[in-house]
Amino acid sequence: MRLVLAGFGVVGQSFAELLAHKQKELASTYGLVPRIVAIVDSTGSVTDERGLDVGKIVRSKRGRGSVRTSGEKRTTAEIIRQTEADVMVETTPTDFRTGEPGLGHIRAAFISKKSVITCNKGPLGVAFHALGELARHNSVQFRYSGAVGGGTPILDFGRTCSTGDEITKVTGILNGTCNYILTKMEQDGLGFAEALVLAQKEGYAETDPSLDINGFDTAVKLVIIANHLGLSRDTVRDVAVKGIADISPGEVARAASKGRALRLLATAGEALSVAPALIARDDPLCISGPLNAVKFHCRYSGPKVIVGKGAGGPETASSLLRDLIEIRGSMAGGSTP
Amino acid sequence: MRLVLAGFGVVGQSFAELLAHKQKELASTYGLVPRIVAIVDSTGSVTDERGLDVGKIVRSKRGRGSVRTSGEKRTTAEIIRQTEADVMVETTPTDFRTGEPGLGHIRAAFISKKSVITCNKGPLGVAFHALGELARHNSVQFRYSGAVGGGTPILDFGRTCSTGDEITKVTGILNGTCNYILTKMEQDGLGFAEALVLAQKEGYAETDPSLDINGFDTAVKLVIIANHLGLSRDTVRDVAVKGIADISPGEVARAASKGRALRLLATAGEALSVAPALIARDDPLCISGPLNAVKFHCRYSGPKVIVGKGAGGPETASSLLRDLIEIRGSMAGGSTP
Repeated sequence: MRLVLAGFGVVGQSFAELLAHKQKELASTYGLVPRIVAIVDSTGSVTDERGLDVGKIVRSKRGRGSVRTSGEKRTTAEIIRQTEADVMVETTPTDFRTGEPGLGHIRAAFISKKSVITCNKGPLGVAFHALGELARHNSVQFRYSGAVGGGTPILDFGRTCSTGDEITKVTGILNGTCNYILTKMEQDGLGFAEALVLAQKEGYAETDPSLDINGFDTAVKLVIIANHLGLSRDTVRDVAVKGIADISPGEVARAASKGRALRLLATAGEALSVAPALIARDDPLCISGPLNAVKFHCRYSGPKVIVGKGAGGPETASSLLRDLIEIRGSMAGGSTP
Repeated sequence: MRLVLAGFGVVGQSFAELLAHKQKELASTYGLVPRIVAIVDSTGSVTDERGLDVGKIVRSKRGRGSVRTSGEKRTTAEIIRQTEADVMVETTPTDFRTGEPGLGHIRAAFISKKSVITCNKGPLGVAFHALGELARHNSVQFRYSGAVGGGTPILDFGRTCSTGDEITKVTGILNGTCNYILTKMEQDGLGFAEALVLAQKEGYAETDPSLDINGFDTAVKLVIIANHLGLSRDTVRDVAVKGIADISPGEVARAASKGRALRLLATAGEALSVAPALIARDDPLCISGPLNAVKFHCRYSGPKVIVGKGAGGPETASSLLRDLIEIRGSMAGGSTP
């Protein structure tokens, strides 16, 4: 199976290395023999239809800061369209407002009859249904397990829960950075600013953490979950969002004294919303530290909760690989073993 | 699709009612038109190849305590073999030692080319691989989602986690009765015997709770999970089992004073074991009350936890229906939507 990688940062590199590492197992267990024929990112591009030497390109990117090994005048979209391949794996940085450049990459792939696997939330937050329709129109597949929950299969789990049952509501903690900050405020009595600095020091928050703490990252993930499960057709603009920057240590302490915890809660019920909320300590949704948790409220089988890490290179790469295995299974006309 | 129901207790009745309730949706969403052509249980049997009136039989069972509406001299296995049907749904009571009568019912179904859906732990605990091989030999399907976790799709979730990753260990709280008892000992300072009486009063424990509290029920579920995921080929006889009856209120209080909780923990690692263990309070596995929780330790994506109710008629019925929808999907040659 021939792959184009658009984006070659931490996740893209982890994915390429995971494919190399699991080469024998993928062939024997799934009949999957992936060959990366093009890698394009903001630093350049490299193509070889016989299959690229991934180790060499990773060293080039880490050493010289660029994947480029040959002159190339085409745009990324042109390379995606013109390269003969079965699947494009899109892992470029997320833009929550425009969805670009991922949106253009995904469209270029669909138009040229390539299936797409992405962990890029931007395109899904702004054009979920348009992309799904474009994939169907071109008879290709569109998978995005890694866009929510990193390596934790939140979307797949939700789909499983809804088969034979009915999901009436989804509530979730979808941003590990916010949850780490709120946990630290609670456990160590820190103020918001101090806890944020600690999160940055520990590598749980970006230098510019605004999209996490203002709730926007949570809102995009909520939109993806709700659309994936058919609960809503809203985009990220339709979500009522409130972040965590205004929360005082006093509020956190008052919650704790009543056996509850303050968490940034996403809710998909009659409408979509993101806001700080009190959760009972013994509710399985009430996780501590940089984790994600989602509760699917099911009509017949009651609430079910899934908890796991919500980010990370190798973690998200494992979701991309799961998607690839499932595309391979459906191309072979059967289900995965 | 023609169904035979073997067993018509709480779960079997819930399943039949769920099919009736969701009739339109099953037809329109999944192309699934189920027709129950035989119901057999320990009180008798009733068959009609045009499809049975389920409401009437439920009323008969609840009113007169029997499903029998016609004379029938055949054994249950003969009825299963001789009835023309696609799927047998096995929900008879569990015998942990022999697996009967479920084991004989499942064999009769496979031999007569019927797929099987069951929530009966007994046959799986004693003959997991033999049954799998018999199903493959007869080119029929074998599904048992409801055997572990009631309506919580623990087995499906484990399979999803292992696709593109590798499960190195599984730990779990698999018995809601034990977890309720331990939670009550912890929260209300009760002794084991008092907490057990409370569990019986609340309907969380059977009149004879021995298979729950001695850890045997947990061990069977562990065997099913480990075999389903290919981590082990052990049967329930191979599991080292220790129950919760010896736990003192002092032990529970000491654990709590150190930020931990005593829980009946099942572990599938190098070997299979069930024993009380200390779990950190902020571990997502550390649930309170009559719930189940399982942690899948994954090589690339880290630990993932699933939490939900572990039993109940409508809950388990939703798992049986999920299995039926998946069998329908694979009979149609495609995957479920």
